[in-house]
Order: sequence, then C-alpha cells, then structure tokens
Amino acid sequence: MNRTPPTRALGEFELIGRFFDRGPARRAALGIGDDAALLPASADHERVVTTDMLVAGRHFFDDVEPASLGHKALAVNLSDLAAMGASPEAFTLAVALPGVDETWLAAFARGLFALADAHGCELVGGDTTRGPLCISITAIGRVPTGCALRRDGAQPGDDVWVSGALGAAAAAVLLGDRVASGGAPTPGALAERLDRPQPRLALGIELRHLASAAIDVSDGLLADLGHVAERSRLAMRIEAGAVPIDGALADWPDAEALRLALTGGDDYELAFTAPVENRHAIGALGSRLSLPLSRIGTVLPGDGVGVVDSHGLPLAPDRRGFDHFAADEH
Amino acid sequence: MNRTPPTRALGEFELIGRFFDRGPARRAALGIGDDAALLPASADHERVVTTDMLVAGRHFFDDVEPASLGHKALAVNLSDLAAMGASPEAFTLAVALPGVDETWLAAFARGLFALADAHGCELVGGDTTRGPLCISITAIGRVPTGCALRRDGAQPGDDVWVSGALGAAAAAVLLGDRVASGGAPTPGALAERLDRPQPRLALGIELRHLASAAIDVSDGLLADLGHVAERSRLAMRIEAGAVPIDGALADWPDAEALRLALTGGDDYELAFTAPVENRHAIGALGSRLSLPLSRIGTVLPGDGVGVVDSHGLPLAPDRRGFDHFAADEH
Repeated sequence: MNRTPPTRALGEFELIGRFFDRGPARRAALGIGDDAALLPASADHERVVTTDMLVAGRHFFDDVEPASLGHKALAVNLSDLAAMGASPEAFTLAVALPGVDETWLAAFARGLFALADAHGCELVGGDTTRGPLCISITAIGRVPTGCALRRDGAQPGDDVWVSGALGAAAAAVLLGDRVASGGAPTPGALAERLDRPQPRLALGIELRHLASAAIDVSDGLLADLGHVAERSRLAMRIEAGAVPIDGALADWPDAEALRLALTGGDDYELAFTAPVENRHAIGALGSRLSLPLSRIGTVLPGDGVGVVDSHGLPLAPDRRGFDHFAADEH
Repeated sequence: MNRTPPTRALGEFELIGRFFDRGPARRAALGIGDDAALLPASADHERVVTTDMLVAGRHFFDDVEPASLGHKALAVNLSDLAAMGASPEAFTLAVALPGVDETWLAAFARGLFALADAHGCELVGGDTTRGPLCISITAIGRVPTGCALRRDGAQPGDDVWVSGALGAAAAAVLLGDRVASGGAPTPGALAERLDRPQPRLALGIELRHLASAAIDVSDGLLADLGHVAERSRLAMRIEAGAVPIDGALADWPDAEALRLALTGGDDYELAFTAPVENRHAIGALGSRLSLPLSRIGTVLPGDGVGVVDSHGLPLAPDRRGFDHFAADEH
C-alpha cells in the first residue's frame, strides 16, 4: 500500500498553532490538538469548548450571502462539538465589521440564530467592534464524563467510516475562484454545500458508544483521517471506490471528483473509526438518521493514510486527481 | 444633583451588540449584558464565560510591543472574570495574522503565557489564520453557585467603590495619538498602564461576599457605573474629590485629569457597590491586597450617574474636563 503523508504538508498557520501548544493539557482533560477541549464540570459530565475564526476573503467569498455566513460561522464550531460527541449548549460571538449595514446584520443574525435554535445553542456573550470583517465564535457543549469522541482512540482492525457525501464544497470553492475571473455562477447545489454545512450533532451523540475515534472533515478527508491516525499511532487504508462522492459532482471527471472528495475539505461530515462488531448498529443508525454512513477503509498497524483502488493497488494524488502511481508513464 | 446620561451615548457598535441580544437568557443563568455569562455546571459552582476581540489600529497601536499585546489580549478577558468574582480556569485563542513573524510570535506568546500562568489559566484551544491582525480570546472561569458578582445587585444606600487609580491608560491613548502626529514619546508609566492592565482577580474573589454589584472599568468609570445603575434600576452620586487619579497624571491640569479618570476607560480596575456595613472589611481587604480601594459615592433611588464637587454641587463634563455647569459664563 502506498502511503500519502500522515497529514498534508503543514501550512505556516498550522505551524503557528503548534507554537501555542505547550504539550499535554494540565487542568483540562483534553487540550489543544483535538476538535475541542474538555473541561471537567461535574461528576457526570464534562464541558466541551471549541473556537474558530473566519476571515473575509480567506474562509468565505466577500459576496457571500450574510445569512449563509451567519449559519456557517456557527456550523463550523458545532461541527467540532459533533466530532466530540457533545451536545451544544451555548456560544459566544466576536465580530469585527468594517461598518454598520443593518440589512446585512439582520440577515447574518437570521442565519446564525436559525442554526442555533435548531440545536438549542444559546448566544451568551459577545463583542462587536469596527475592523476588517472577521468572525470568531466559541462554542460550548457537554458530554457525559469519559464519553467524548477523541482523535486518539482508533484501534487496529477498526473500520473507517464517513458520513454524507464529499467533494461538493471544495468544488464550489474551485468554481467560486473562477467566478471571480468572469466564469459562470457556481451551481446552487454546490454553493449550498459550501455555504450551509450541516453539523452532524445527532450522529456524534449516537456515536459516543459506537465509535472509537472521530473528527470532522474540514481540512479534507485524508488530512483529517491523518490527524486521527497520527494521534492513534496507527495507519489507515482507504478504498477509493467506497468514498461517497457528492451527487452534485456527477458530471465531473471521476479522478477530479475523487480528488475533491479525498482532499478538498469544507465538508463538515464526520469521519470515524469503529470496531467491526458495530457495523450492523452503525448501518441501522444511518437509516434512522436518514444520513448515509459509508464504510471506507480499515485501521492498520503502522502510520500514514493510504488510498487503494478496487484491486488493492495504491493510488496517489496528482494535479488532475487521484491516479495510479505510475500514471505519468502510461 | 445633575445627571449625566445613565450610559454614555451608545456607539454604533454597541448598537450592533444589542442587535444580538434576544432578551433574558434561557439556558444560561445570566446571558448578554453582564461582564460575562453564567452557565450552570454542578450543584456547587457555575462556569463563567466571556469573550473579547482586539483589532489593530482600534484597540492597540500598530507598533505595540507584542509581549504587551499578548498580555493585554488575555488581561481584558480576565478582567471580565474578575468583575464576576470568578476564578480563571481556561481560555481559547483565535488569531488572524497578516504573516508569520517568529520573533513577534515568540514575544506575543511570552506575554500571553506569563499572565496566564500567573493566574493558573490554561490555553485549551485555538485557531490561527491569515488576515488583518485580530485577536479574539474567550476566557472561562468558575464561581460558587449564586456567588457571582453581577451588575444588577446594587441597593439604595450602598457605597460605590473603585480599585486602584484611574486615568493613566486614557492619557496614554491621548499621547499615543499625538506621537502618531510627531509628538514626544508617551511616558513609560502611562504606556505601562495602557499596555499592561492587571486584572483584579484576587479582589473579585474576595468581593463575592462583600459587594452587591461589580463591573470592570473598560469604557470609563461613569459609563461603566452607568451600566450598573441601569441594570440595578438605581442612581449614583459620585464625589469628584474622592475619585482616585493616577499619580502619573500629577502634572496634568486638574480638570483634564479628572475628566480622564471619570470617562477615559481602559483602566481595568473594578468598580463595585457594597453595603455600608462592609466599609471596614473592604478597607481591610485593600490593605491585605496592597491595592487602594476608594469609596467614591453612594447608590440612590432614581436613575443616572451624577458627579458632585466637595460642596455637593453638580459637575458636568466639557472638552477641558469636568467643570461646574455654568463654567462657560465665568
């Protein structure tokens, strides 16, 4: 099996993140390096805390519909709670805005509160200031003590699963860049997947007793599984043909669609590992939640995350997508 | 007694904050509108959550020493915890940076962690991204259930107190603006008060059983007392001669120094109200903490916060400072 690097090459800003990582958590049960931190609360539950910052031009297009931005700013944090198996409770909102546009603000708040209310998550504090558009949300949830889904719990032989379908958000980013250069508008189905990710909170809660490790797919499936593999000190083999590719990519070349599904990111689905004996229960859970859950691979001894074709032969990424290693020689 | 408005005129960004205020907290014990939110944790304590966002050019000068910025970004949040009587536990950090400057980052982290370690507050999560310099910290603390200091607890007849000395940070902002226009450097004592505020955490904890209401002085003493008066549905009378003015302002005209102390902001001292019978205990507390605690006024029925001179005659602010109402006619 070929191994892609255990995580994608670290960007400079991920290196900064490491700059603030002072090693194992002291007071917290789990600190930097998972989807969220765990703080002991009472004998029976822990508090789960996560934070994200979205910057205009980097995390969203400048012309994003403000209701979608309000939705997404909270959704990415709720997705982190989902990946921990937590129930959301509350969030804080800090916003820098270049000016006051009441129509824009009303729409932003509408998108934000619609998602918050759907999940019983209350805005409990905030700060607003003038500055380049920037949104930072900290979400707080709870999980029964010892039940949080972590990145470091995968075991050899576990199945690897992912929820939903992948690749559409990344395709929307690609097309969005082309729109900026005068291309056709991004199809609505793709834009919807980028702008309105649905945090998989019900799934995360149900997985507390079924999964051995979990993460949300924000950086890209392989990169995020790489975080699980690295933390669990294990390897994974992913079967390309089992990876669920969003139906909105049906017209795209297969290799490009697979590349987007494996590496694109912004999907906010849950990727998780689970013992083989839980296959049936997880299948039933998917039906109950009306959410496809795909078994896409296996946890193995070793390190790194590899992708194989239907014959078990290794695939590797190139500019056009995932292809056989020796593709250039064909 | 003359009354200045119960709060300073609302800036547009405070109006935005109100845009997100949906009324009384539902799940939280205390939501938007106090220094921090309260979330029930266990039978014996509550979690306290607060968030702030600092933007370059607005909350700090572009050339601020990065260690001071790291200190201040956390200090303003810890000050909110202090105003609630909370013990700090953990914080998250979200940072947008225009680029990676390792020397700058090392200094920023040094200032941040020095203050965090001094108060046993652990960094448990974060997000780093590229963007215009912007720092958002969410701090989490705990307080015994029912003991949090709130803004709405002042009672008629209570004394009004403030810790430390006021006005130096605002003077540093004034001089900083002049430096930008080619003026002399800001004296170190003033810059220190602006850049290195000391959150009054030990005081806040001790005040849990002595104070009836508390707030930290960030917007300016009168504005912040105005928040307490408004929330408590009461008025306050402040004696100008009792307001502690920072010694670094000794060379400034009296009226201007008083204006800065009353309205300048950025002091991060605690202003609080307390029953008259606690005067002796509060005096002793100040000695024990080596922190001056000044009794500056009285809580009264009514609304608004007024300032009086030593004869009980009302003072009002003008451009040069606080002066008698009819000053223009002299």
